[in-house]
Parts: sequence; C-alpha cells; structure tokens
Amino acid sequence: MNQPLTFDLLKTDPSGARRGRMTTAHGVIETPIFMPVGTAAAMKALTPAQVGEAGAQIILSNAYHLENQPGSELIEKLGGIHKFMNWNGPILTDSGGYQVFSLDKKTVHEDGVTFRYSKGGQEVKLNPELSMAIQNRLGADIIMAFDECVEFPTTHTYARESLERTLRWAKRCKAAHQNPNQALFGISQGALYEDLRKRSFEGLIELDFPGYAIGGLSVGEGLEHMKRALDFTTPLMPVEKPRYLMGIGLPEDIIEAIERGIDMMDCVIPTKFARSGVLFTHVGRIRVTDTKFRRDKFPVDTNCDCYCCKNYSRAYLHHLFAGNEILGATLTSIHNVHFYMNLTAKIRDAIEQGEFLKFKGEFLETYQRAEGKKQKSSRPR
Amino acid sequence: MNQPLTFDLLKTDPSGARRGRMTTAHGVIETPIFMPVGTAAAMKALTPAQVGEAGAQIILSNAYHLENQPGSELIEKLGGIHKFMNWNGPILTDSGGYQVFSLDKKTVHEDGVTFRYSKGGQEVKLNPELSMAIQNRLGADIIMAFDECVEFPTTHTYARESLERTLRWAKRCKAAHQNPNQALFGISQGALYEDLRKRSFEGLIELDFPGYAIGGLSVGEGLEHMKRALDFTTPLMPVEKPRYLMGIGLPEDIIEAIERGIDMMDCVIPTKFARSGVLFTHVGRIRVTDTKFRRDKFPVDTNCDCYCCKNYSRAYLHHLFAGNEILGATLTSIHNVHFYMNLTAKIRDAIEQGEFLKFKGEFLETYQRAEGKKQKSSRPR
Repeated sequence: MNQPLTFDLLKTDPSGARRGRMTTAHGVIETPIFMPVGTAAAMKALTPAQVGEAGAQIILSNAYHLENQPGSELIEKLGGIHKFMNWNGPILTDSGGYQVFSLDKKTVHEDGVTFRYSKGGQEVKLNPELSMAIQNRLGADIIMAFDECVEFPTTHTYARESLERTLRWAKRCKAAHQNPNQALFGISQGALYEDLRKRSFEGLIELDFPGYAIGGLSVGEGLEHMKRALDFTTPLMPVEKPRYLMGIGLPEDIIEAIERGIDMMDCVIPTKFARSGVLFTHVGRIRVTDTKFRRDKFPVDTNCDCYCCKNYSRAYLHHLFAGNEILGATLTSIHNVHFYMNLTAKIRDAIEQGEFLKFKGEFLETYQRAEGKKQKSSRPR
Repeated sequence: MNQPLTFDLLKTDPSGARRGRMTTAHGVIETPIFMPVGTAAAMKALTPAQVGEAGAQIILSNAYHLENQPGSELIEKLGGIHKFMNWNGPILTDSGGYQVFSLDKKTVHEDGVTFRYSKGGQEVKLNPELSMAIQNRLGADIIMAFDECVEFPTTHTYARESLERTLRWAKRCKAAHQNPNQALFGISQGALYEDLRKRSFEGLIELDFPGYAIGGLSVGEGLEHMKRALDFTTPLMPVEKPRYLMGIGLPEDIIEAIERGIDMMDCVIPTKFARSGVLFTHVGRIRVTDTKFRRDKFPVDTNCDCYCCKNYSRAYLHHLFAGNEILGATLTSIHNVHFYMNLTAKIRDAIEQGEFLKFKGEFLETYQRAEGKKQKSSRPR
C-alpha cells in the first residue's frame, strides 16, 4: 500500500448520510463507524476478544495518557501499541489536545502547552513535534494533529486566535510526522462560529490531510447547537476524505451526525455508562441497578443477541452490581459496545438501501417513546 | 441416572494418589480436581466462557452468601444456579458452615446457629434443615452438610462436643435433603485430633453419604499439621467414595493432599491472588506489580499457553495494574485458574502413568528452587 489509508465513498444517501470504506494497514473499516475508547491501551473490563466479538472494527486510544504511563518509548520497544494491547485491528490515537486543555492549570504558548499530569507532578511540555513523536512511536493506524480544544462557551476573539495557532500547529504536525504507515488527520476548531470553521477548513485543506476531524464540539454545547454547527461545517469538508466527529456521543447524537455526513465517531459513553449499570436498549436506556430489576428474568434487551443478552437476566446483572462483582462491568460493557456496533451496522445497511431517514424515524420513534423526554444529550469523553 | 453422582476409581498410584471420574447431572469431572471458587454465583472478573477455556470442570459457589444476596428463592424462580450464572457444568455449593463460624459474633446451639450477615443487620438463624432447603433451591450438583468448623487451635473437649453436634446435624441434613438430582456430601470435623477424626468418620459413614469432605483444616494450622492430619484421616475414608479436602490451597498443598488420597479441593487463592497481581508460574510465584516487571517483554510463564500468556507481556500486565484497569484482574485470573487446572491435569496424567512421585519431585524442584523458602503455606478461603 502506497498510502497508509484509503477511503472509498460507496454511496451517499439522499439525506446526506455517507456509506464508505476505509482501508488501513490493520484492516478495513466500514463507515459510518463508532469507535469504542480504550484510553490506556486497554478497553475497560473487556478483553480484545470480547471487543471483537461485540463487533468493534477500530478502537481509540490516547497518546496523552499512554505517554504518562507506561510511556511511548516502552510501547515502541515492546513492538508498538497493537502488539502491546493485543488488538490486531485498526487503532486511532488521539493527540492529547483535548485532555491537556481539560486541565485546570496549563499554559498555552506559541510553541505548545505546559502542564502537569497530576497535582504536584513534574511540569511537562507538549507541542506538535512531541505529540507526533509520541504517536509515531505508539504506531496506531490513524493519528491526530495536536490542537487546542477551546472550552464552551468561548469568545469569537479567543476562538479565532486559538484556531490560527492550531492551524500553525497542524502545519508543524504534518512536517514532523515521520511514520509512513500512519495516516495523520487534521483537526478543525472554531467553536460554534461559522466563519471560523470556514477559515479552519481552508487552512487544513491547504495542508492536504488524508482525513479531517471536527474538534471543539461535545464540550457542553448540547445537541441542538451541535446539529447547527454540523449543518454549516460538514459542507466545508472534502467529499472524498473521511470525516471524524470527535467525542460523540449518545445514540441520538450519532444518528444526527451521520445524517450530516459524518463517517467516524468515538466516545467513552458505552463503556462508562455500562460500568455504572446504565444500559442501552432499542426502547431506550435502563439502569439495571434500579430495584425494579431485582427479580427481572428478562435479558437487558430482548432484541439483542450479544453474549450478555443471550445468557443473562437483568436480575443476574442487578445481583452482580449489588455485590460489586467485576463480572457486572464486563457483561454490561459487552452489551453496550454491541449495541453501538449493531446500531451503526444497521445504519450502514439503511444507507445502502437509500433508506437512512426511514431507519432514523423508526429507530428514534421506538427508542425515545420509552425514553421519553427524560434525557438530554450529554457526552462525557 | 438413578443416583445424582457416581464415582469410579480408575487407578491408585503406588504413592496413594487416586485417579477417578465423577459423573453428575451436569457432566463428568476427572479427579483429582481443583474447583475454582465463584462465591456469589460469579467467578470474580471472569465470564463462564473464560472459566471454561481456562479448563475448569466444576466450580464452587456459596449458599451462605447467595441466601443473603440475592436469595435462594429468587435463584430457584429464575431456573436455578446453573441458569442464573450461565455455567452449564457441575457446581458445588458450600453450606455456609465455614462462613458462619468465621463471624466474630454468632451463637451456636443444638438447633443451629444465630448470626447477622452484617453489622447492625437482622439476626438470622441457620440450621441443617434451612441449609438443605437453601441448597435444594439453588440446585447445585453437589451440596454440603451444615457443619460447625471450629477454629484453630481448639481444645479436645470443645472439638469433641462440636463434632458430635455436627454429626447430629449431618443426620438432620440427610433427612431434610429433598432434591434427588443433588448429591449431599458429609463433612468430617475433629480438628487435628486423630481419635476425633476416627469418631467423625464412624458417624458419617453410618449415614452413607455419596461423598465425604474433610472440614476444619486450612484454618491456620500450616502445611505440616495438615499433612499429618491427612496421614491419619484419609485412611478412615471409604475407598469407593470421592474425598474432598475443603479450602485448600497453594500448589504445594494440593500436591501433598493428592498424594494422601484426596480427590477434590477448592480455594479462592488463584483468583484472589490474581486480583492483587500475584501469579503462579512453573518456577514459582511472581508479583507482576513489582517495578522489575515494568519493562519485561516476556509472558507471565513462558511454559503456559493460556490466553494471557499467549498474548501479553508482564510489562502490559504491570501497566494495567498501575492504571487500575479491570482488564488486569481478568487476564491474571485467567492465567492463575489455567495454572491450577493445568497442574491438576498433569497430576492426573502422572497418576495414570504410575509416576505421581516422579512428577511431584520434578514439579517441586523447579517450582520451589526459584520460590526459595520465602513462602509459607497460607490459605485464605
């Protein structure tokens, strides 16, 4: 393969939803796709075998966390991230921009950012060149430019200043990126300002990345703002390149993003919610720790054929959580990851049939009827 | 099947070690066998699929804990313990005698024992009839008589008084046991006193149980006392019935017990040690959290073909424990259970070849050379 990543746009639904196929050194990814997050080169509570059985095609890990522990040099020495964590499919590493900028105390300057990994820890500098060196050593199939993710809300003035710096960083990332087996994606910033997103993509496209991400959303703006931002942002993105919306989200967020032409998403929601007993079903979310499930003989979702639903009752899961049994986190994580993988598989089928909006209507009708108005979009990352 | 359990003694090694085969309603168990413990109808950090892959033939669960949460009536209503926990192989439930008598505050009387599950909790009575009703509802293949497990050390006077009561309880258990698909084992007591063990087995054998257990060992007496007690106890046991030594142990304990004619053992050690990063290898134990393993590219045990050893370095496991990743407990538990299952499988082969003592010598030579004198027998349960 001459390029580390190719993208074939197979079909575009009348709605705008896209059906594509990415090819990486570690395998093919059918899009649109949701990427489960294994922050520290480990999916929480799941073996790679279980992640694969749940249907995951690509997983996301985090350069920021891995550089802190155990260090990218060690992972490189041990054969790279795929071998280290025993996941032989595609992997994407985030640069650490989001994590650094979530810290209370950090100093942003033209070269990069200065911060501490923990309270009282040593001061660390991260800049585009270091982020590329770290991600080159880790060896994921897709790596991300080092960007500044501004918080919500932010002023137009700061957002503009920040995105111009992020563009200069993107250029430095591109120059520093040394591993020809990895595809480096550019990240757009600009908050919720249409003119800034336009400027951001003008600058990024000039640098010609093999894929583009939308950063700076899923930072607390809510679903309606996100939809509006996508409405004016995805048309700015090259048609022939994969489009990655970072840090999204709930099932309803995913559907809205795909309708607006997004190909890739990631979020900790399925696994994080699972560990607190919150499970996704085709009729909405349930919290299996609720007393009403103590004697419930039914599986989490009667429509689901995952290992958890084929073999266990809600009463058993309730029992595991009551006893703080680790197995509870494993079984619920299997289910939630499977739910997300199954949802995106069905969406891909619907796009192929040219029936994305029909699927969306039917899915949300059932999912939200039971769900009611009780939930708002909330996207921890 | 007319009987809930049959036992065929296939071969007796010159050393005294026995190779047998038990048949239960849920499958065949090749003995000698070690039974991993899933106290609350869940193997800690492992799915039943992983427990099966690690080679387990039968697992142990605990009536005392299950009656407290979620209750045997609920488990019966949901189809019994096999269906509840999705383990379709043989299961043994302990009666709760050991657990009740480990409590600081309990009152023993002729009818049974009174205690509280937790500080400030409601007072609960447990007696032979209730223990049988609970275990009948749970539906394990092998169930245990309700006994008093006296602490170590204990006086001859108290041990005698207690074992006579335990014999009266054994008779009541036998009379109360109602489920013809379950085999009820009698439990011998008598501490380290030879005359009392003799009396205990006279009384039990009169009641004609399909299998007999040795209780009251692994309570802190140490390996030498245990060996001596087994030396005079196993000859008291019927040759044609399975012999179960409760709560044992470390690999060296298991080997000594098998040499003395024991067929079945159980202990939390493999899974409990795994969760704190202590791993068994053919050259002794290692603590993978030790700094020296931070950069170690080798598997836990180069001689092992479990999922953990085939796919992961010690450095990766060290990394998982450093980050408190649940996956660490899962992978180390897979390894330790596999180690115990592999050890007993090799012992069975050695007995078949009439070479048990040769195997014992070679195993301990390698295992203890690296292990040195650093460890004493210690058997949490």
